[in-house]
Amino acid sequence: MPRIPAPDLAARHAAAARQQQLTKPAGSLGKLEELAITLAGLQGRDIPQPLQPAITVFAGDHGVCADGVSAYPPEVTAAMVANFVHGGAAISVLARANQTRLEVVDAGVAADLAALPIVHAKVRAGSGNIRREPAMSAEQCAAALEVGRMAARRAIADGANLLIAGDMGIGNTTPSAALICRLSGHSPEAIVGRGTGVGDTALAHKRQVVADALARVAPDLDGQALLAELGGLEIAAIAGFYLEGAAQGVPLLLDGFISTAAALAAQAIDPDLTPWLLASHCSQETGHALALAALGLSPLLDFGLRLGEGSGAALAIPLLQQAIALHAGMATFAEAGVAGKNE
Amino acid sequence: MPRIPAPDLAARHAAAARQQQLTKPAGSLGKLEELAITLAGLQGRDIPQPLQPAITVFAGDHGVCADGVSAYPPEVTAAMVANFVHGGAAISVLARANQTRLEVVDAGVAADLAALPIVHAKVRAGSGNIRREPAMSAEQCAAALEVGRMAARRAIADGANLLIAGDMGIGNTTPSAALICRLSGHSPEAIVGRGTGVGDTALAHKRQVVADALARVAPDLDGQALLAELGGLEIAAIAGFYLEGAAQGVPLLLDGFISTAAALAAQAIDPDLTPWLLASHCSQETGHALALAALGLSPLLDFGLRLGEGSGAALAIPLLQQAIALHAGMATFAEAGVAGKNE
Repeated sequence: MPRIPAPDLAARHAAAARQQQLTKPAGSLGKLEELAITLAGLQGRDIPQPLQPAITVFAGDHGVCADGVSAYPPEVTAAMVANFVHGGAAISVLARANQTRLEVVDAGVAADLAALPIVHAKVRAGSGNIRREPAMSAEQCAAALEVGRMAARRAIADGANLLIAGDMGIGNTTPSAALICRLSGHSPEAIVGRGTGVGDTALAHKRQVVADALARVAPDLDGQALLAELGGLEIAAIAGFYLEGAAQGVPLLLDGFISTAAALAAQAIDPDLTPWLLASHCSQETGHALALAALGLSPLLDFGLRLGEGSGAALAIPLLQQAIALHAGMATFAEAGVAGKNE
Repeated sequence: MPRIPAPDLAARHAAAARQQQLTKPAGSLGKLEELAITLAGLQGRDIPQPLQPAITVFAGDHGVCADGVSAYPPEVTAAMVANFVHGGAAISVLARANQTRLEVVDAGVAADLAALPIVHAKVRAGSGNIRREPAMSAEQCAAALEVGRMAARRAIADGANLLIAGDMGIGNTTPSAALICRLSGHSPEAIVGRGTGVGDTALAHKRQVVADALARVAPDLDGQALLAELGGLEIAAIAGFYLEGAAQGVPLLLDGFISTAAALAAQAIDPDLTPWLLASHCSQETGHALALAALGLSPLLDFGLRLGEGSGAALAIPLLQQAIALHAGMATFAEAGVAGKNE
């Protein structure tokens, strides 16, 4: 596997020094300063270039839906993929609003999507029911990771310098919760939430399903084996997308619960991933805040979102763009002839 | 004075009903749904139109600087006004990034700015030292309010349907803190902060200055009299800007500590202002969160900003635009042929 590079510390330091010279009290732009400095280190440029983001939505179905873990029927996965293509989904609208490339990849939808103009990379037609069997075989997991890697290569070849993964898969908060529990050490009570909106009885049942899945799996599995046991096809693809993006030196803007579970699994596969991750928002889904904390990330937005699709990450694109615009476009005290702070 | 209208409840209700039909779990877009519904009510349209924001930065100087309340010399006010005009300030960059009209108004800068291409509406050359005298006379306060009203009329005549006020005035966190203390009932210890960055000794002194100013002023003054006693020329102008915007049915996106102090004063002048106020961010300045809470507002962003100029409000423009784009552009379940929630 390609080696993930480290961020450029010299560019970080130069960017931090520039921030001190811009016509504002030092530190007064708060997180916008931190973002500009972080992106300078990731791009290896004292003044980062404007972002050209690419959004790839990975779709897959989940055998665990047979255990009644979702408020929606599994057929919605395929219907929503069609909605992405026709431009009516939230991520379709946000990609347009941000003038961003949007690609949809079938990594493992149960239905036949051959008629839709998407990337056809179905590894299998839905995962196994993780409550009682592996989500996929080791070979299928390797193939799903490669589906994500190829999507990252396509996006970067098209000029992307920021990668966003979205997810679509009815039932996918259940495998995501299982992965987060195992990789963060938290309990199902702390991590499992209502997903698209199950009631109290179904929530208690969903926690039991996750506990059963965790009990089934050996305690010493590595990241890739965990993805095969507890993950899902779109989740493994997202993990591959992140690993390839980082290997190519491209920053990764996380979305919500599912993409963060995939990032934790990818980090377990290669810990050098960590500095390439940026958190866009904290979702309303129980446990997302704990999952982000396990990655050492602090989110930009707290909007009570729980949609997935990459929507929260897309929403945050203009915040990053404005951080870069300020860093690049503001005058220094010397340029503007403005006096500095009193001694 | 023109009467401030109430938001359109029928449009609000229609927008809330539409949100339930869009292809996403109900409520899954969190604050974005609330924003779209709020803007529908304020615009009086079931589907709000895209925002055309206008930013007006009001500048003024403060006699209380003689008491050593700021980390920067008062000459910086005029130098920063020149920086706005030349495009090097944070708000200049953010106005360009958001393709937004930016106007700068001299409401009361001490220096002569006649050579700069700004709106010349100087009411007086800096305010009085509020520690020992009124900031301005009643007549000057009425004139400063009218400066803001005229700026709102110009922006709306140019097509603005969202108004943002920014501030520039070395020393202006001191009068703002005094106004917030009086209008929210909190103490100087809770409200007074470091502004552009004073140290511990200067912070204690600044609290005393605010306490002295508050002790000087009668307990039963109305909003306009308080602005004259404790405010500043750009603060009074911002209050007038908000009152006129609301009277014309245009939503107002608050920035940080100074604009929120002006909003509290404007609300004291006319309580019908309240529903027209939106909070963009919670500033790092001590007391801003309490001031927003006193207005019943919850901010969209918490980025540790403490710059003013309208920068935090400008930063939030794309969040509002995306909320509207989603509301207007997403397909309904019926349109997309997507199944709803399980019964």
